[in-house]
Amino acid sequence: MSIPNRLSALRKIMEEKNVDAYIIPSADNHQSEYVGEYFKARKFISGFTGSAGTVVVTKEEAGLWTDGRYFIQAEAQLAGSGIELFKMGEEGVPSVDEFVVNHLSQNSVLGFDGRLMAAGEGLDLERQLKKKNVIIKCDEDLVDMVWEDRPALSEEKAFELNVKYAGETFESKINRIREVMKENNATMHVVTTLDEVAWIFNIRGNDVTYTPVVLAYAVITSDKTYLFIDENKLDEDVLSKFVKANVEIKPYNDIYEFVKNVDADERIMLDTERVNYSLYNNVPAQVNKIEIENPAVLMKAIKNETEVKNIKNAYIKDGIACTKFMYWLKNNVGKTKITELTASEELLKLRKQQEGFVDLSFETIAGYKEHAAMMHYAATEESDYEVKAEHMFLVDSGGHYYEGSTDITRTYILGEINDELKTHFTAVARGMMNLSMAKFLHGCRGYNLDILARGPMWDMGIDYKCGTGHGVGYMLSIHEGPAGFRWYIVPSKHETAPFEEGMVITNEPGIYVEGSHGIRIENQLVVKKAEKNLNGQFMEFDAITMSPIDLDGINPDLMTQREKYYLNNYHKNVYDTISPYLSDEEKDWLKEYTRAI
Amino acid sequence: MSIPNRLSALRKIMEEKNVDAYIIPSADNHQSEYVGEYFKARKFISGFTGSAGTVVVTKEEAGLWTDGRYFIQAEAQLAGSGIELFKMGEEGVPSVDEFVVNHLSQNSVLGFDGRLMAAGEGLDLERQLKKKNVIIKCDEDLVDMVWEDRPALSEEKAFELNVKYAGETFESKINRIREVMKENNATMHVVTTLDEVAWIFNIRGNDVTYTPVVLAYAVITSDKTYLFIDENKLDEDVLSKFVKANVEIKPYNDIYEFVKNVDADERIMLDTERVNYSLYNNVPAQVNKIEIENPAVLMKAIKNETEVKNIKNAYIKDGIACTKFMYWLKNNVGKTKITELTASEELLKLRKQQEGFVDLSFETIAGYKEHAAMMHYAATEESDYEVKAEHMFLVDSGGHYYEGSTDITRTYILGEINDELKTHFTAVARGMMNLSMAKFLHGCRGYNLDILARGPMWDMGIDYKCGTGHGVGYMLSIHEGPAGFRWYIVPSKHETAPFEEGMVITNEPGIYVEGSHGIRIENQLVVKKAEKNLNGQFMEFDAITMSPIDLDGINPDLMTQREKYYLNNYHKNVYDTISPYLSDEEKDWLKEYTRAI
Repeated sequence: MSIPNRLSALRKIMEEKNVDAYIIPSADNHQSEYVGEYFKARKFISGFTGSAGTVVVTKEEAGLWTDGRYFIQAEAQLAGSGIELFKMGEEGVPSVDEFVVNHLSQNSVLGFDGRLMAAGEGLDLERQLKKKNVIIKCDEDLVDMVWEDRPALSEEKAFELNVKYAGETFESKINRIREVMKENNATMHVVTTLDEVAWIFNIRGNDVTYTPVVLAYAVITSDKTYLFIDENKLDEDVLSKFVKANVEIKPYNDIYEFVKNVDADERIMLDTERVNYSLYNNVPAQVNKIEIENPAVLMKAIKNETEVKNIKNAYIKDGIACTKFMYWLKNNVGKTKITELTASEELLKLRKQQEGFVDLSFETIAGYKEHAAMMHYAATEESDYEVKAEHMFLVDSGGHYYEGSTDITRTYILGEINDELKTHFTAVARGMMNLSMAKFLHGCRGYNLDILARGPMWDMGIDYKCGTGHGVGYMLSIHEGPAGFRWYIVPSKHETAPFEEGMVITNEPGIYVEGSHGIRIENQLVVKKAEKNLNGQFMEFDAITMSPIDLDGINPDLMTQREKYYLNNYHKNVYDTISPYLSDEEKDWLKEYTRAI
Repeated sequence: MSIPNRLSALRKIMEEKNVDAYIIPSADNHQSEYVGEYFKARKFISGFTGSAGTVVVTKEEAGLWTDGRYFIQAEAQLAGSGIELFKMGEEGVPSVDEFVVNHLSQNSVLGFDGRLMAAGEGLDLERQLKKKNVIIKCDEDLVDMVWEDRPALSEEKAFELNVKYAGETFESKINRIREVMKENNATMHVVTTLDEVAWIFNIRGNDVTYTPVVLAYAVITSDKTYLFIDENKLDEDVLSKFVKANVEIKPYNDIYEFVKNVDADERIMLDTERVNYSLYNNVPAQVNKIEIENPAVLMKAIKNETEVKNIKNAYIKDGIACTKFMYWLKNNVGKTKITELTASEELLKLRKQQEGFVDLSFETIAGYKEHAAMMHYAATEESDYEVKAEHMFLVDSGGHYYEGSTDITRTYILGEINDELKTHFTAVARGMMNLSMAKFLHGCRGYNLDILARGPMWDMGIDYKCGTGHGVGYMLSIHEGPAGFRWYIVPSKHETAPFEEGMVITNEPGIYVEGSHGIRIENQLVVKKAEKNLNGQFMEFDAITMSPIDLDGINPDLMTQREKYYLNNYHKNVYDTISPYLSDEEKDWLKEYTRAI
């Protein structure tokens, strides 16, 4: 069925159900950023394959809202669909809520699947629609009614993440959460986000491509724990551990009934940004709700010592793969046929050679020439470019290892490039290094430091329309809150928490010129304490990504002494760390590509 | 009467009135930062002369809360007073509210003069004290009852600021405010802050030392304006202009009765951060309150073209005075006796030679050696140091000219200084220059840019315990919202508005080492637009302060090429602008002190 036909079918159902506007978010029932195939309703209805976006369908109109990372891609994918692109964050572009509030007339009906929207968003919409007396119908999934060959819910197995990787038992984590419940005078805590469930219970799964989570909810009381999960996903060993620790297993969907039957005197701690609107509404009105950020959000972002040690190892392994890839690319381009897809395969092959590699941590972005201007470009058979011995090739990729998840971007120079490209490449590298060098007082947040990375671009009147970096989960979500780098505050992004020792955050400034080129250089930073003195607790970053920054793109004349010193030091570190794992040829080559400038 | 005796007298009154804790803020009835002598109750009761601080007196305890600028000074001034210093912002130090809430028992009574507290603060306290059922008594000024020789309310004359200086008539300003009232569906607007009244009506006065405001309130309706002011302060000319424009003059204190008698169907626009708690409470409960930031706050911060042109002129005049002062200081130190006070007098004398100079814009801070470590040190006969041909001398001063208000800090090197001092001086200069060079997207706020100034200090594990800069009024308050530079958000400071073209903001990083030295270098920045392109509207700063940065303190080896380029360019600009007004000897000297490094 073509997209216009899908839209017509949906509009027919909307008419039958008397729904005037219908919202289709990207989420699953757990407010996940990346979702399983079953949940890709927004992709089904619009044809847009990006990870973030919301579709609104009214009788006459249809719109897709997405952010700067996806403007170019969305424009291409929506062509001819009858769906208008709304570029979020651009001047004069209404938000989804503004659009809905403006387009709905008095006493009309707004529909959406309430499980796909965070409670907070739903409550916000309620408030905004009150004056127009709009009725919200959120108990039916209308897309399901037109989606004939919808994939089934994933039935993949889950597995345990050994404590030698996790660094803390699930019992200990649950106890820490109970401490927070006590502080907040709560008797019950509902956990619905998949990465939190996975982190708390030290389990991982295969229900979402590239994100090793398992479909589950959890409820923690002061003396009991409930895990809502398809029992078939867990093996006997894990099940018996859970039973011993007083964790009761219940069917996945039972949580909705469970919260309906909560005693009136319970005090439920829940996070309206994470619990979905349907689940929230199922909690009896008389039950006291303590609405705070889930404690696991910060807990899992602050990696423990074992995790940090493991992650550094994972980055060495990943660095070996990426460095070997760079060697292969530089030495084969122009000699053997390489395409965006075959290059991605080669990189995957090299990662697979590393012990403890489990899967890619996200779909590899391998963009040659102007493809690299699309921040989240993923090559297809149709779009696949041959990579030649000229211009630049951006590769953003990562892996899940038992020792942690990685995320690295390098832009490779594959021939002589002109001065403009070199200036751009150098600016991006400088931004990345300046942020890496930051020293700052405890209490600083991403919006305080972002300009260090962005400054070299802003100085040239250039901006990249995205944040500079995001937290990364431990063998979990590749985008993890609550800290990141972005100069302006987007409350829904949950990235403005102060930096704490043990947080792991990417540093990935870039330059994207539509139709021409894209450059991004990304290292992973671990937050650590620097000195504490009368002035306070100072903090700094440790860059743990171990792969050369292509010196063929660098113009040293545009760099400060400090930047050169940093780069030379970084490259020496890369050589010392990675070279023991390389062949003699690779080693000689790496020596040259990590030389001091 | 000694401070302990004053406290005892107050405690006696508190007992009579059955008040368990009494708060004495620094403010006047208008939430002014600097206040007239009549309003210096907090200074009277504590002996602390800083501009910011709050005293709380309970039966057994008394505390003063002040910020980092005043820690050293407050510690000295409170010695032996029986008043404990609470260092705001330091770890583990309770806020005033936390202290009050913790110290008051169930059903006790908290007192303060409701006119001295913003409505928002009062309402906050109410909320926090509710669960303890604490009664708030805010209708009596208890300090007045023990303050025998309290100065009278100022009766100084006011005067008109000609439109050739103001750039816009008061009628036009009132019309712009009425537009905002209309947008917010308001029929009435209450203005109580003195700088807003002065700005709106293009009047200035002499009721507060160093701040040329006049004690007044205003009420603007859709067709009428009321100015609550002692009529004797205005001359016939101004009065007749006001009458013509339908501005009705009413006695200063009548506003309290006026708002009591507001019609129930009025919709009053007021700013709970600016209207005082008593006035707010006087508005009948059934009257609709539209609580938004006063429109004049942003309007007056965005200087119009005439104002910007004038301010640049004022900075040339001020630069001539400051440059001549530097020449005088450098050439006389060690030869004639100079003290902190005589140096201040010399600088004042030089400013007075400038046409259009009206008064100092704040008490001159002239701190030699370790005195400079006190950010807001003001020399007294007792503390006055002789300034010798060694070490460093920090002078932070400014003037009100008809063409605008100035604020400049220079730290002068008066002999050989050691490497540490030179490194510190260079870091401060680098921070100041890096912020001046910033280019950024429209929408940026102070917390995005602060690290540019603070970075060189943080890199050394040093911090200055204050913001990096503040807005400056046009012949008005030397500290003006709503934009400034500070890395962390302090809602009460009102300094996180995005930078708009025409805003005038200081840039004054520093290093303060208690008992040793203090360095601050301050230039004034005007926000202006840079290019607008597909990436958005870029903004940048124009540094308008015209006086050399003492090259004797600079170690060029610690600077980047870009910083050197900026400094050389800045100094060339200073020389070209100021030298035409200097004697030949001064000119030769300036050539040397603005040489390229």
